[in-house]
Parts: sequence; structure tokens; C-alpha cells
Amino acid sequence: MPQTHDHARRRDTLRAALASHEPALDALLVTDLDNVRYLAGFTGSNGAVLVGADPSGDAIATDGRYLTQVAEQSGDLRAVIERDVAKALLAEADGTVGFEATALSYADHARLAPEARLVPTTRLVEALREVKDDGEIELLRRACAISDQALAALVEEGAIRPGATEAQVARRLENLMYEFGAEAVAFETIVAAGPNSAIPHHRPTDAVLATGDFVKIDFGARFRGYHADETRTFVLGEPAAWQREIYDLVRAAQTAGRDALVPGADVRAIDGAARSVIEAAGYGEQFLHGLGHGVGVQIHEAPTLGKLGSGTLSDGAVVTVEPGVYLPGRGGVRIEDTLVVRADGPELLTRTTKDLIAL
Amino acid sequence: MPQTHDHARRRDTLRAALASHEPALDALLVTDLDNVRYLAGFTGSNGAVLVGADPSGDAIATDGRYLTQVAEQSGDLRAVIERDVAKALLAEADGTVGFEATALSYADHARLAPEARLVPTTRLVEALREVKDDGEIELLRRACAISDQALAALVEEGAIRPGATEAQVARRLENLMYEFGAEAVAFETIVAAGPNSAIPHHRPTDAVLATGDFVKIDFGARFRGYHADETRTFVLGEPAAWQREIYDLVRAAQTAGRDALVPGADVRAIDGAARSVIEAAGYGEQFLHGLGHGVGVQIHEAPTLGKLGSGTLSDGAVVTVEPGVYLPGRGGVRIEDTLVVRADGPELLTRTTKDLIAL
Repeated sequence: MPQTHDHARRRDTLRAALASHEPALDALLVTDLDNVRYLAGFTGSNGAVLVGADPSGDAIATDGRYLTQVAEQSGDLRAVIERDVAKALLAEADGTVGFEATALSYADHARLAPEARLVPTTRLVEALREVKDDGEIELLRRACAISDQALAALVEEGAIRPGATEAQVARRLENLMYEFGAEAVAFETIVAAGPNSAIPHHRPTDAVLATGDFVKIDFGARFRGYHADETRTFVLGEPAAWQREIYDLVRAAQTAGRDALVPGADVRAIDGAARSVIEAAGYGEQFLHGLGHGVGVQIHEAPTLGKLGSGTLSDGAVVTVEPGVYLPGRGGVRIEDTLVVRADGPELLTRTTKDLIAL
Repeated sequence: MPQTHDHARRRDTLRAALASHEPALDALLVTDLDNVRYLAGFTGSNGAVLVGADPSGDAIATDGRYLTQVAEQSGDLRAVIERDVAKALLAEADGTVGFEATALSYADHARLAPEARLVPTTRLVEALREVKDDGEIELLRRACAISDQALAALVEEGAIRPGATEAQVARRLENLMYEFGAEAVAFETIVAAGPNSAIPHHRPTDAVLATGDFVKIDFGARFRGYHADETRTFVLGEPAAWQREIYDLVRAAQTAGRDALVPGADVRAIDGAARSVIEAAGYGEQFLHGLGHGVGVQIHEAPTLGKLGSGTLSDGAVVTVEPGVYLPGRGGVRIEDTLVVRADGPELLTRTTKDLIAL
């Protein structure tokens, strides 16, 4: 897991970005809580970090509730204990101070603006977060392994069966993730049966699973702040011909997408590699969303693998590959893995089989 | 539960506030998602509402993922389907448009400012939310009843016992809340045993419950968007004299706080009514936080019952009353109810006994 020296290294990398920022920044005020955790290890609900041009200017602020916690989690940083964390850190900063334009409200900016020369910045920390370090990859590996274990146990105990409700299956899977060591679920588990499986982001209902249904399960564990994201689609009973057809198609597209995960590849081309397989089979209109997204301290983060994305894939990025085909009123299939992008080919973190399982 | 006409009535109440705002507003752009749900019933993760000077100007925006959902939940409102919901609604608004200064980021404001004459506003919807209508109170009653049922079942099955871990007890209680109908937990359940019970906001660990411990449990169910908030403190085995002393003290303070819940009372005076009981016993320094807070579509909302609060208590507010005494290294007690403020005395929503239960 990330140690104090990982956080210090991340702050040093960010420091280099401050010098090359236009205009040059004497410090960055970090108020996004995911970024605070990334840079300082601190997990409290009120906190901010100041990263200076020199490490001696680095500090963290939080309120009195977290006095002990901030010392344990961020003991290498000078801690300022004040409820108004942004104001307290700004009072310590000289010169031109960047702030995170998407993580400070209009009201907070208006309140703080007189305190210092504030410059809006975008995505400085998020850009660093796109490439995961070894400590982060290990936590993602653990989160994905917990997810795999929980799904295997769910299948083994026969919980995905005709007569169960979507909500029951979802709750059981979430409990199994906790049993295998999750600190939380990465997001609300999707269990979508029969026609509901054709809804990309269905929320589990009291709908009852029935023989002949596709059962699409999109789920993941969170482990020490890092998220897993995995989807598998099962069939209850003997698969019909149309079910085999779209399952095999989505699986082929998913393979094509994984094969396209090469450092330096254009993110839209990766989406295209999978999408073209589905389009060639005449189901292009039924693949309604992008191919994938980065995953880390947030369940959705950079890069975006899809038409709305831009830029190229970084070595060390962790992304999902999740094509789907959805036939309204009948059912849908999505197959999703979480993988680490590497020069010698992607490392698969979600290892549950992608063979079509008939239950 | 709230119906379409409840949401329409809330928008009408807000409309009246727009006319009396300084400067007068021709419309309010609502981007806070809790406020969107409050005004329109919509629960998607991307949405905004425009409330005009005339109901014909009202509209909701969301993206294509929620096409069906917005029709079901907000069918009385004109729906605009665009990913950039704030921009789409602003394009439809004439004149002076208010926005929620704490719910729009600096970056979003900078992006939108050219579109219209934007005026920052604060707490317009939040002020309305402070007084609950009958539909809301019924949902809060249900959320609290589920919480009470789950805690009763937890006690009955003997889950709070020496040898169990804090985390096991917390997970079991959360599962019981789901079994009794919770859609989610209102917040991460606190189970704090022995010395940990002296930490006001302890997160459950693998610490093992032992005879002689206080076990403080702070928890609640969420039901159709509304939150319960309840704390009870148990003792394992025969209570020691010091345990009885601080338990009885906190209970007396909690009674004093509940008795002070009178419409029109100063919110600091309500805190003082409970605090003075604890101070008189010499434990004032060990009551580290405010007495309570409003609860509704958020777990913490207006009013604040404490030294940092201001204003008076409204008839129809729903608040917690939760004094505590924390003795570092030994243990602590907190007793918390959720109640509706009414002219003829508060209505208690969390009905679990406040007698000291020895398990």
C-alpha cells in the first residue's frame, strides 16, 4: 500500500508541474478530497493540502476531529488545525497560488479571493493520477481479486437462480465482497435480469430471475480507497441462439479492445477497435456507451476510452474495457475487465472467466 | 411519499422567494442534486432544474441515460435532454438568473457566465427544506422505524456480545436495515467499543468487544432519499459506577435538549439547555460537539443546534438531539434521537428505549 514516501514523491512530481505551469505557481491549493488523499494519504472528510515550490512549504489542514488521524496518516506534513482549511492554508502561502477550479465552489472562491493571488488550474493532480505507481497497482489488484472471489462464491452457492430477485443477488454479492475484505463497494451493484439486462445502468429491483434470462452483473470492491470495476453476464438455463450470438460478439469486441491497449495508442482508436467488431456485425446502434475509463481513487477517472476522449494511453494507466450490446425488451450483454496498461501487454486484474456460463 | 403535486408546491414556494430576492430573479438555476430531487423528484446523477418567475418557465435537464427515468419521476416538468445540463437550462432562461453559489464550481461558473446575467444566491432551497412537509415527515418516520427495527433485531439475536468485532456488529446492523426495507444506509455505521467509544466519530475496526465495555452505536437507514440518525450506547455486563454516572448524565442532558425543542427557540439556547446539565456535573469539557442538526434529504442539514448555529427553530423542522460525554482511554456515551419539532411538543421518530441496556 502507498507509504509516506509515495505521497512525498507524488508531491515532488506535482511540484515540477507547478514550475512549468503558465503562469508559474508558487504553490497549489488542493481541495479535491481524492487529490488530498492521493498527495497526503489523509482520508478525513474535511481537508486540504498546500504544495509549495519547495517541500518546506507543504502543509495539510483539517479540523480538530481529525487531530489524531492526520498525525497517523500524514505525519510527514506540517498540519494546520482549522475548520476553514482552504483559508488557513492560503494564509500561509506567498505569491501566486493555484487552486483547483472544478473543486472550489463559486462561493468559496469569492470568499477566499482577497487572501492571495489565486489562479485557476485544471487537472494538475488528475493528470498525475492517470499513471499509477506500484503501490496503487497493488491496491487495485487486491480490489479486483476480492471482486473475483466474491463473484466465484456467489456462483458456487447458487445465488444466481430462477426465483431470486435482482436486489437479493446484489445484496448477497455485496456482502460477499465485505467478507473477502472490501472496505466498501466501489459503486452500487448492478444486477439486471431478462429485459432489464438491456438497460445499461439498471438499478436492482424486485424483478425475479427466470429461466432463459441474461443476468448482467456489474460490480466491484473498494480496497483502501482503490476501486475495482467488473462486469460478467450469465444466462439461466440453455442459451438461445440469439443469446450465444450477441455474447460471442461482445466477447470478440472485448478481446479486440484489450488487444488495442498499447501505450501511446489514441484513446478513440482503442474504442474504435472494439466498436468496429460490433458495427461489422450490424449491432453498432446497440452499443450505446464508450468502451472504458480509467479507474483508481475514483471509479471513473482519466482516461476516457471513447468518442469523447482525447489524447493517448499512458504506460501504467489502469482502465476498464467494457463493450456491450443491448437489445431493448429482450436482453443485453456487457463484459468488462479492469487492466493495467503495460508495454509488454496489459495485465488483467479481473480474472473471472469470460466463457458464457449457463446456470 | 412525495407526489408530483408536492414538488410543484415546493417550486411555487421557491418562486415566491425569487420575487422577493434582492436583486429580483427571473429564474433560479438549481444544480445541487439534493435540491433537484427536492424540487422535482429526480434522482439521477446528472440533472438541474430551472424555476422561473412563472411555472411555464420551469424545466428539468438531464442526459440521455435518464430519458425514461426523468419522464417517470418528473413527468410534470418539461425535460431538456443535454449532457451539459446547466448550460442547456440557461439557454432557455431570460433576464436575471440566480445560481447556487455553493453548488456551482468556479470552473462551471466561468464557463457559463457569458450565457446570461448570473447572480449568486445562497441557501434559497435549503431554507425551504428546513421545514418538512407531511410527505417528508412520513418518509423520515419510515427511515427511523426501519432503524429501530434493525437495532431491536440486532440486540435480540445477541450480535452485540464479547468476542464480536466492531466491524462485524456494524455489518450485521447494516444488513438488518436492508432486510427491514432500507434503500441504503444513511451513513457509515459507527460501532465503537471500550476505549474507542470515547472517540466521537470512530470508524469500526477489528477491535473485539469485551465484558465491561461501553458499545456506542450510531447508525441510520435511508428510505426514499430520507435519512434516519440514531445513537444508542450499551454496556457489556454489569455497568460500573462510572458508567452509570455518565450514562445517566447524558440521558438527563438529552431529555433537557428534547424538552427545549420549541418552535421559535434560539438554536444556541437549545444546545445550552443540554450542555448546562453536563457542565453542572463537571463534564463540560468532555462534550466535544454540538447538540444536533437538521436531517432530511441530507444527513446533516439546517438548522445547526450548537454554538455555531444561528436563528430560531422552525415548527416542522426535523432535528437530532445527541449529547455525549467522552472520557479518553475509558469510554464514552452518546444518546441521539431524531425528532419532529411541533408546537405541542416534539414527535419522537427514533423509539428505541433510552434505558441503559446491559448485554
